[in-house]
Amino acid sequence: MNDLRQRLDRAFNPRSVAVVGDKKALGYMWLNAMRTFQGPIYSVQIDPAEIEGITALGFPNYPRLQDIEGPVDYVVCAVPRQVAPRIVADCAEKGVTAVALFTSGFAETGEEEGERLQREIGEIARRNGLLLIGPNCMGIYNPRLGLRHSPEQPAGEAGNVAFISQSGTHCINFSLLGYGQGIRCSKTVSMGNGEVLDVCDYLDYFIHDNETELIAAYVEGVKDGRRFFSLLKEAARCKPVVIWRGGATQAGARAAFSHTASLATPGHVWKALMRQAGTIEAQDLDETLDVIKALLYCRPTTGRRMGLIAMTGGQSVVITDAFEGEGLEVPLLTPSSYKELASFFNIIGGSYRNPLDAGGTVAMGFAPNNVQRLLDILDRDENVDAIAFEVGTGFLVRRIREQPHLLDSLAQTLSTFKERSSKPLVVVVHPSHVEEVEPMIRARFVKEGLPVFSSFRRAARALARAIAYWRFRQGYED
Amino acid sequence: MNDLRQRLDRAFNPRSVAVVGDKKALGYMWLNAMRTFQGPIYSVQIDPAEIEGITALGFPNYPRLQDIEGPVDYVVCAVPRQVAPRIVADCAEKGVTAVALFTSGFAETGEEEGERLQREIGEIARRNGLLLIGPNCMGIYNPRLGLRHSPEQPAGEAGNVAFISQSGTHCINFSLLGYGQGIRCSKTVSMGNGEVLDVCDYLDYFIHDNETELIAAYVEGVKDGRRFFSLLKEAARCKPVVIWRGGATQAGARAAFSHTASLATPGHVWKALMRQAGTIEAQDLDETLDVIKALLYCRPTTGRRMGLIAMTGGQSVVITDAFEGEGLEVPLLTPSSYKELASFFNIIGGSYRNPLDAGGTVAMGFAPNNVQRLLDILDRDENVDAIAFEVGTGFLVRRIREQPHLLDSLAQTLSTFKERSSKPLVVVVHPSHVEEVEPMIRARFVKEGLPVFSSFRRAARALARAIAYWRFRQGYED
Repeated sequence: MNDLRQRLDRAFNPRSVAVVGDKKALGYMWLNAMRTFQGPIYSVQIDPAEIEGITALGFPNYPRLQDIEGPVDYVVCAVPRQVAPRIVADCAEKGVTAVALFTSGFAETGEEEGERLQREIGEIARRNGLLLIGPNCMGIYNPRLGLRHSPEQPAGEAGNVAFISQSGTHCINFSLLGYGQGIRCSKTVSMGNGEVLDVCDYLDYFIHDNETELIAAYVEGVKDGRRFFSLLKEAARCKPVVIWRGGATQAGARAAFSHTASLATPGHVWKALMRQAGTIEAQDLDETLDVIKALLYCRPTTGRRMGLIAMTGGQSVVITDAFEGEGLEVPLLTPSSYKELASFFNIIGGSYRNPLDAGGTVAMGFAPNNVQRLLDILDRDENVDAIAFEVGTGFLVRRIREQPHLLDSLAQTLSTFKERSSKPLVVVVHPSHVEEVEPMIRARFVKEGLPVFSSFRRAARALARAIAYWRFRQGYED
Repeated sequence: MNDLRQRLDRAFNPRSVAVVGDKKALGYMWLNAMRTFQGPIYSVQIDPAEIEGITALGFPNYPRLQDIEGPVDYVVCAVPRQVAPRIVADCAEKGVTAVALFTSGFAETGEEEGERLQREIGEIARRNGLLLIGPNCMGIYNPRLGLRHSPEQPAGEAGNVAFISQSGTHCINFSLLGYGQGIRCSKTVSMGNGEVLDVCDYLDYFIHDNETELIAAYVEGVKDGRRFFSLLKEAARCKPVVIWRGGATQAGARAAFSHTASLATPGHVWKALMRQAGTIEAQDLDETLDVIKALLYCRPTTGRRMGLIAMTGGQSVVITDAFEGEGLEVPLLTPSSYKELASFFNIIGGSYRNPLDAGGTVAMGFAPNNVQRLLDILDRDENVDAIAFEVGTGFLVRRIREQPHLLDSLAQTLSTFKERSSKPLVVVVHPSHVEEVEPMIRARFVKEGLPVFSSFRRAARALARAIAYWRFRQGYED
């Protein structure tokens, strides 16, 4: 492991943490976020009015970092920007491994004073071999260690997905919204303006991090395009990389400059590079989470031929348009599948050419056995590479109210099938007018390790992108 | 009013209703759906086992339609397909205006028996001047009269949006999901296989229906393309028409045939016709509802220059990409706007070039006055035609828990602004990891008549389509 990677590993896995400048006006957000951290947590604050509140929360407070007796691996700094250089210098003197600057008002303002201050803290850090994260960021999240950005983030559970983000909002939302969809973070970093450590440094670290099986990133701009591209190529050969690019449009690039002082790459150049590197692109947070679910919870396939099951005729048409519209195929089934389907399928109010409009066969009588039978037929069918299953919420709303165990039974049928079959299975649960229903059904399926999507199109797009990645890994040229 | 329109008006506004063949296995769904109907409801059923349940529900039952003493304007028929011709003949004899056949198993099966039966019921209806809706459909929904497809649909409230649907599922979902988003139906019709009455007949009726201010349709195929196109052109000149096309892909077209025996038009031909007619296209139910919200709740504009307000730097970049990505513009503001913004905007952790990253100015201290101030600046700015406002759920979750009145205050600020300003305002509320939060915030804003969208991209796409329609209406060539 090279020296930077080794030091980043210490930063992402600190033994002790200090928060500098937390205050009541912030709701003591940083100290509250760190409550779950499994190691010593120190506060540094000189304002007597704030110290009272901090000690009342149970944290030991020190006037300076250097006054803390034990070693400090990781510091979060929330002081005003004018004070930041002194704190960074204190970190260097104390021998801290990494400091994350929540403080903003630097190069992203476009003002001389902010730019000067950013150069100053950067120089102090570089001169002293101090890892500086940010400024204008949330720093590191390591759920296993309980090291957090926000008191609302999950803690105590190890995950396998890393997220690098030039936005604190997206970084927190990724972990919070992802959690509810079955995505567990190994580590994330909100890297802000990236004065010292850039996207590439974090990317290099996560490529070599054994806890991380998949890397996602929200990127507004990179300093060293050549290195970035070469790292993406290296990464894609061992784990999937999903890049959500901010500032992709002209005005978006202007906004990105105001946000993190990032300079953008022209769109067509970027797209070509991503494709060549085997990188998976996403347009927003929803698409990022969707494709990660497909990559994590589907068995890999290089085939594009879908077997589709929906619960009504109207949904059968729309599920087909969605998957074919995203570049996948919906072929006819084999004669032996049709023979078997003909033996029990109810074609009054249904059909089974592919898509299988299973309303009459599954939904009205609600027969989980028939769900399994349909899945097994598609599993055996040589014309089918992957399967999509719609859970009709309209129908389930009424049924589950009457017989709650039906949801368990359906979840178990799908989960058992997923374990047994070598074909990927995606599950679609549409929004319901009864607003608690979709989250309840989704949560039950997520618990079973199923990839659940909230529309046909989102499922189709996610699976199509995952298949493109699996094809890249197998050396296909497209 | 021509004869067909007049008879359709009677069908959509019946004075009395009969349900033929409802049964326990269906949970007496039809009679339960009709409970809210403001007029006599009769049941026709000959099975003694079923009659008992029906009279227990309080509905008068008759062995034949002809046994009912008073006139019957509208009949829903749920008998097995072999019995359907006899019931249709009974309707004709009784002098019923319209019969909707829930019964399926006709041409959509692709089987000779089904095709023969469909021809037979069609001939009986045509011969007797009986309006036949379907078969394989849910028929008419008129919320004002309480005439429904399902016991879950709203009743008692008049609306202004008509929906024509070749799918019963989409027809019900449209009314249920639309209702929660502020969309109220005037009337809807699930028209199934359309043996006698086709999309064109309903379209013609809704063009002339004074209750209907906007027409939407889910269409799998039309019999008379020339008439359809000519009606679309006529409609678009007086009210917006949104068409969601099912079976747009090759396999989707196959599925559409299995669903309603519809034959599709090639994609490029379809697209060109829609564009020429000034029809608004949507790809799925979400897009259909989104563009309707923009059309109903935004002031029309033909300009494309957006003023954007988001609550963090990361969201500022993404909102800009979304609107520019959908073909709208995000220009710089006028010098006088910048002058005013500079006087109070907090640029530490924020920026105001456009987008306005208002986190530091609005969110942290939560100042509704500042929200109004920002909106007013964009309202006065000559470079801005339309405004998008992000409600940061991450931030609101915590604040609203502490001070619930803040949501009211924000909703009132936005709603007052919407009333006063001549520029369209769209509001984005992202999903939150606390699942009850987004629905609660959304419901509050919907109550104020605000168009609320669940992502930047969805808001941008909906507004861009609405602007394209408003430009069409003003004679712009693009």
